[in-house]
Amino acid sequence: MSVLLEFAMFPTDKGDSVSQYVGEVIQMIKESGVSYKLTAMGTIIETETIDEALAIVNKSYKVLEPYSNRVYSSINLDIRKGKSNRLEEKIKSIESKIGKVEH
Amino acid sequence: MSVLLEFAMFPTDKGDSVSQYVGEVIQMIKESGVSYKLTAMGTIIETETIDEALAIVNKSYKVLEPYSNRVYSSINLDIRKGKSNRLEEKIKSIESKIGKVEH
Amino acid sequence: MSVLLEFAMFPTDKGDSVSQYVGEVIQMIKESGVSYKLTAMGTIIETETIDEALAIVNKSYKVLEPYSNRVYSSINLDIRKGKSNRLEEKIKSIESKIGKVEH
Amino acid sequence: MSVLLEFAMFPTDKGDSVSQYVGEVIQMIKESGVSYKLTAMGTIIETETIDEALAIVNKSYKVLEPYSNRVYSSINLDIRKGKSNRLEEKIKSIESKIGKVEH
Repeated sequence: MSVLLEFAMFPTDKGDSVSQYVGEVIQMIKESGVSYKLTAMGTIIETETIDEALAIVNKSYKVLEPYSNRVYSSINLDIRKGKSNRLEEKIKSIESKIGKVEH
Repeated sequence: MSVLLEFAMFPTDKGDSVSQYVGEVIQMIKESGVSYKLTAMGTIIETETIDEALAIVNKSYKVLEPYSNRVYSSINLDIRKGKSNRLEEKIKSIESKIGKVEH
Repeated sequence: MSVLLEFAMFPTDKGDSVSQYVGEVIQMIKESGVSYKLTAMGTIIETETIDEALAIVNKSYKVLEPYSNRVYSSINLDIRKGKSNRLEEKIKSIESKIGKVEH
Repeated sequence: MSVLLEFAMFPTDKGDSVSQYVGEVIQMIKESGVSYKLTAMGTIIETETIDEALAIVNKSYKVLEPYSNRVYSSINLDIRKGKSNRLEEKIKSIESKIGKVEH
């Protein structure tokens, strides 16, 4: 099974520049060993179970909790049985149909 | 602390009518005892911890897993310290500013 | 055709209480005449075309733009041909399967 | 101004493999000339106005409309005044704080 979870999570009480806090969350994800990709809008992780994916969301909040009174998060899940390595394969599948794309 | 979590979760391999599956998820939420509201676009739950809120998302997937090879979910979290009963209070706060609204 | 669009939109540089700004957006939606429901996590509108639905998102940003240097928005669309009045009907459809629910 | 808009849009009545349809949407975006990045969970575009960004969402639906009775979309917007090229710069800003990341 392939669980793709994409999320953004940020404090909403820290002004318009929050990369310091987001950096701490990404650092935790890097150190966790989970497969991930950083994008301009969030982080995509791939795990084998939904439990592992949601645990990363939970830990991300725990990173931000000491700093902030209010935290917002937007999350998308795409869970598919019988697949793996979709962090790479979904883009390749599109490229096999329409040629090279920016990624 | 008030954790508001709104989510939609549905199989994407079951055609355009999925209310049978969604109904089973809502039934589980009803029986869980968590505070919730059904909307036309998903379900909003309110819990005191992020752990409880993410556990409902996890259980929702477990309801759908036997039926479907592919499940999609969109989730938003609004976590705020020092507040409670925001399922009701956020709408009342808007109404205190601009008068009656549809809800 | 029924276009359901749910969205939250808020400044992220105005501290943890943003109901003043959100109130102005809801006021604009009320006055627009579009079918809508306010929830604890955002606003759901129903229109007959995607053009009308996206125009409300655009106008919402124009309401916030003078106040804020940074605005975040999370939006979900559920577009279905051959249906109408889904702001009410989707909840009724669930209730017809599992009985009364909170909404 | 920098408008980052990330979105996924797909038919929900076409079974579990929808890359054919998603490919047509990406093809339209490629040909549009807008700055974009494909990810495993969607497409991120960057424009100078919200009007241009929402026009791409609108055109994406028009690509899918002939094929599908039901289309779902999840969209996030991050709009920030006084910035540009954030498709690249947001990732670099994180890397300047915590070192190299996967992207």
